[in-house]
Amino acid sequence: MPIKSRIRTVPHYPKQGIMFRDITTLLKDAVGFRVMVNDLVNHYTGMKIDKVAGIEARGFIIGAALAYQLGVGFVPIRKKGKLPAETVGQEYELEYGTDKIEIHVDAIGRGEKILLVDDLIATGGTAEAAVKLIETMGGKIVECAFVIDLPDLGGRKRLEKLRHKVFALSEFEGN
Amino acid sequence: MPIKSRIRTVPHYPKQGIMFRDITTLLKDAVGFRVMVNDLVNHYTGMKIDKVAGIEARGFIIGAALAYQLGVGFVPIRKKGKLPAETVGQEYELEYGTDKIEIHVDAIGRGEKILLVDDLIATGGTAEAAVKLIETMGGKIVECAFVIDLPDLGGRKRLEKLRHKVFALSEFEGN
Repeated sequence: MPIKSRIRTVPHYPKQGIMFRDITTLLKDAVGFRVMVNDLVNHYTGMKIDKVAGIEARGFIIGAALAYQLGVGFVPIRKKGKLPAETVGQEYELEYGTDKIEIHVDAIGRGEKILLVDDLIATGGTAEAAVKLIETMGGKIVECAFVIDLPDLGGRKRLEKLRHKVFALSEFEGN
Repeated sequence: MPIKSRIRTVPHYPKQGIMFRDITTLLKDAVGFRVMVNDLVNHYTGMKIDKVAGIEARGFIIGAALAYQLGVGFVPIRKKGKLPAETVGQEYELEYGTDKIEIHVDAIGRGEKILLVDDLIATGGTAEAAVKLIETMGGKIVECAFVIDLPDLGGRKRLEKLRHKVFALSEFEGN
């Protein structure tokens, strides 16, 4: 599998016991990067999509290349305090405490069809917060796309329980 | 000018007196986003480029779409502590204090031709640090590309003094 074989595993990052799936080895490879984006493009070509929303920061890389190739606009969903104009925010749970993501209030229009993109889905906390933000603005989630799914952490099931479709290019066991 | 007219100015962000040039209004516009990337693609098509390096976070959006269309790999240059494998770092001056950007040590090979991309060049401090990182790894800077140049802040001249070529899609007066 050309994508999965180019993803590097960094053991014990960011802490003991975590097997970090690092896509930078995939991105820097001209063929790997192209295949990754094309696999997403092939899946979404023909679907009605108005905008791609990417989650900071790695979701920007994948989402922007995909948006360009689909011929649609790109909307960044950012960590709190990073967007300059008026925003709406959504908190989500971390292992310890909470964090918050934000989107510009004029980023998405009512009824627009939005493809949500990030590099990886683990527990799905950030993705669920992003989905809520998009829906708060009246956007319709077409699907949630990821390069990597960690099914053992339950994020895909969590989004599916909320009746959202999930598409992932690869799966890794464990955390 | 289709790009410049789609960039929003947010007055007094992040602080009093700063006119923040906000590209999110350009990015979310399907035509604006496409024209922006195509203008860069047209400029770089035919030049020998091995990889595009984008500076976190907005440089990821522009750099990734450009890398895809040029058919080359993408390398993220990140804020400190964000990359999972072995890195090299470079400090740069802020108005008060310093900050640091990092790149994976295996991101760029000796002699590779690198196009550096960010959304905006102001004083050029971050761009100069990125250039140093790339050169530390033996990469050759083909050019430094930006969507916005703020010429009054001197970043372009600073890079040109280091014998680097700068290409920008638009200019804004002031800060």
